[in-house]
Amino acid sequence: MPRIDTLAVIGVGLIGGSFARALKAAGAVERVIGVGRDPANIRRALELGVIDTAQPDAGAAVEGADFVLIATPVGAMPALFERIAPRLAPETVVTDGGSTKSDVIAAARAALRAKITQFVPAHPVAGSDESGVAAASAGLYRGREVILTPLPENRPASIERVRAAWQACGARVTEMSPSDHDAVLAAVSHLPHLLSFALMRDIAQRADSGSFLAHAGSGFRDFTRLAASNPEMWRDICVANRAALLGDLRRYQDELARLGAMLEQGDAAGLQRAFEEARAARRVWSAQRGAPDSAG
Amino acid sequence: MPRIDTLAVIGVGLIGGSFARALKAAGAVERVIGVGRDPANIRRALELGVIDTAQPDAGAAVEGADFVLIATPVGAMPALFERIAPRLAPETVVTDGGSTKSDVIAAARAALRAKITQFVPAHPVAGSDESGVAAASAGLYRGREVILTPLPENRPASIERVRAAWQACGARVTEMSPSDHDAVLAAVSHLPHLLSFALMRDIAQRADSGSFLAHAGSGFRDFTRLAASNPEMWRDICVANRAALLGDLRRYQDELARLGAMLEQGDAAGLQRAFEEARAARRVWSAQRGAPDSAG
Repeated sequence: MPRIDTLAVIGVGLIGGSFARALKAAGAVERVIGVGRDPANIRRALELGVIDTAQPDAGAAVEGADFVLIATPVGAMPALFERIAPRLAPETVVTDGGSTKSDVIAAARAALRAKITQFVPAHPVAGSDESGVAAASAGLYRGREVILTPLPENRPASIERVRAAWQACGARVTEMSPSDHDAVLAAVSHLPHLLSFALMRDIAQRADSGSFLAHAGSGFRDFTRLAASNPEMWRDICVANRAALLGDLRRYQDELARLGAMLEQGDAAGLQRAFEEARAARRVWSAQRGAPDSAG
Repeated sequence: MPRIDTLAVIGVGLIGGSFARALKAAGAVERVIGVGRDPANIRRALELGVIDTAQPDAGAAVEGADFVLIATPVGAMPALFERIAPRLAPETVVTDGGSTKSDVIAAARAALRAKITQFVPAHPVAGSDESGVAAASAGLYRGREVILTPLPENRPASIERVRAAWQACGARVTEMSPSDHDAVLAAVSHLPHLLSFALMRDIAQRADSGSFLAHAGSGFRDFTRLAASNPEMWRDICVANRAALLGDLRRYQDELARLGAMLEQGDAAGLQRAFEEARAARRVWSAQRGAPDSAG
C-alpha cells in the first residue's frame, strides 16, 4: 500500500491502538500522533511506542496528518467531527472504528459538509472485553472482518486508501450500505451484548447472587463474556442504533415468549425441535467460519 | 480411594466416557462395563478403550458392578432406575451425572425404594458442546465442580465412596440440597442455554439469515456457543426443572422489558448504569474464578 506519512489516531484505546500497532508492524506508517482524553492512557501509549507524539487537540493533530482514524465511542464523534472539520487538509482521508454507521455518517455530514468526500466510514468487527491501549495488539484485526460503508460522495481513490490501510492490518475488508450494516449488526452484535448485560445484571441484583455465581460454570462464562464490555461504548452503540436494536429486541422477546409457553405447557417435542433448529444453524455457521468451538 | 472393581457406566457419552477415562487414568478402576443404545458409539467406546465390555442390558450390567454411573439424558433415567432396581447388589453404590436433581431423585425413590440408600446424586458442572464418547476425555472434570446432593437415606460410607470417585477424576466436590441445586442451576446454566438457543433460532428463522450470519463475530460466537448443545439433553433439563426455570425466565423477561424501556426513551444514563452494574458483577466473578476472559 502507499505508505502513510502521518497517521492521527483520535481515541488511543483497543481499536485505535491496535490500528497503529498493526500499521507500524506492517511498515505502512511513518509517524503516529495520538489524541486522547485520559492522560495516563496516553502516557502508556507513548511508553509502549503505539504513538510517537501526543497532541491534546484533535484539530491540531489532523492538520499535519494524511490519514486519520477516529476510534472513540460513537457518542463522542459528533463533537470531534466539528473539531477537525476546519483543519482537515484536502488530501487527507478519514476513517473510523464506530460500531454503528448511520448515526456516525449523519454527524460527519453535518460537520464536514463538502469535506464529507474525505470520510470513508468503517467498522472493524473485532474486539475484546479488554479496553485501553494496554490491550492493543498488532494482531487484533488479522483475519477479522472490517466493513466499509462508503458514501456516494467518496472518491474511489479515498476508498482505496482506506481499504488498503485496513488490509495492511490483516483484515478482510467487505462493503455494505450503512443501513444494511446497522440492521445486521443490531441482530448479531448489539442484541447479544444487551442480552448478556441483562443476564449478568439480573443475577447480580439477587440477594443471594454470591451463592448463585459460586456455581456458575463455563457456559455461564461464555454467555456473559460480552457483559464485561465497556459500558460507555455500549451505551452509545445502543442509543445510536436504537431503532434497529429495538426491533430486534421485540423479535427476541416474542421468541422467548414462545419458548416460555412451550415450557409452561410441558411441550417437550416443541422445545426439542426449537433447540434442534438452533443447533443446526449454529453448526452450519460455525463450520463456515471455522471458528474454534469447544467450550474449553 | 478404595479401588473400584467393576464400574458400570450407563450412557457412554461425554459425561460417562470422561468419568471412565478419568478413573482409568487415575488407576482407580479395574474394569468398565458400558451400556448404550447407539451401537456405533458403543463400538467406538470399545475401540478407544473407554470401556472394556459392552452390555446392552442395564440390569445385567449393574449386577456384577460395585459402582454405577448413570449418565444418560435425565428424561431416560426413570426407566433405567426401574430396570436396575431388582439387580442392584446391596454393597453397590450408584451416582449420576444429571443436570437436574429433584426430578432424578423422585424417579430414583419411586424405582429403588429401600435401595435408595445406595444412590448418591451428583451433577458434574462440566461439559462441552461436543457429545458422544469420541469427545470424552480424562481431563474433563479436572478442577471443575461436581455438586453432590446427598439424601437423608444415604449411609455416610456411600457418600464417601461417591465423593472419592469424583475426586479421583480431579473434580472439586461440593454439597447442596437438591432444591437449592435446581434453583441455582436454573439461573446460571439452564436459563443461559435457553437464551442462547432462542437467539440462534430467532436469527436462523429470518429470510435473510445467511447475510446476517456472514457478519457475526467473536461476541456472537461466545454468546451462541451454548446453542450448539445437545437438544435432547436440554429438552429434558428444561422440562425437568421447569418450575425454577420458568421463574427465572420471567425475571429475565422483566429485566429485558426494563432495558427495552430505557432504550425506547433514549435513557442513555440508565443504560450506562445498568451496563456498569453488569460489568462490575462480571469482573468480580471472573476474578474470583480466575477464568480466562479474553474474547479471543
